[in-house]
Amino acid sequence: MVKLIALYRQPNDKEAFDEHYTSVHTPLVEQVPGLQKLEVTRIVGTPMGKPAGYYLMAEMYFADQASFEAAMASKENRAAGKDVMSFAGDIVEMMVGESEV
Amino acid sequence: MVKLIALYRQPNDKEAFDEHYTSVHTPLVEQVPGLQKLEVTRIVGTPMGKPAGYYLMAEMYFADQASFEAAMASKENRAAGKDVMSFAGDIVEMMVGESEV
Repeated sequence: MVKLIALYRQPNDKEAFDEHYTSVHTPLVEQVPGLQKLEVTRIVGTPMGKPAGYYLMAEMYFADQASFEAAMASKENRAAGKDVMSFAGDIVEMMVGESEV
Repeated sequence: MVKLIALYRQPNDKEAFDEHYTSVHTPLVEQVPGLQKLEVTRIVGTPMGKPAGYYLMAEMYFADQASFEAAMASKENRAAGKDVMSFAGDIVEMMVGESEV
């Protein structure tokens, strides 16, 4: 699978972040063509119980490189990307990865 | 699910890292009691095609908080943790997260 990974650092206003993420951003992501799975992980801390540098991670799974590239070029993905920049552009880090799952 | 996430930054010697990760570290992780899934993701870059800050991500899934805590306290996990410090202590970042998957 090809995965688009979004790592969000701690937002200043967690409540506003959660509200926008759940009610606006997630529905946009779910419309991206070819998306096979969206896994959202809330980071609770380090294994030693300390605060972690990241607040949330989203993993978007695509079947292969071709469907990933088609998804990235879609208008739905541009809308999701524009949205993420509007509410979390200063705290998000995006990566592409390959996993065997 | 409760997830233990290991994010590895770019190693100086990728070949040596891969060799140790695959042949030594992964078998140790797979022995940790209660581990339901291990998902390893190789980071290939950013969505814009630039180099990413991270090289590899491992996600270890446990059914719930109780089995996660039992796993962390196990001798098998101590062995895996000791191993990771021996070959990647300077480049690994560990986090605990909760996902609905």
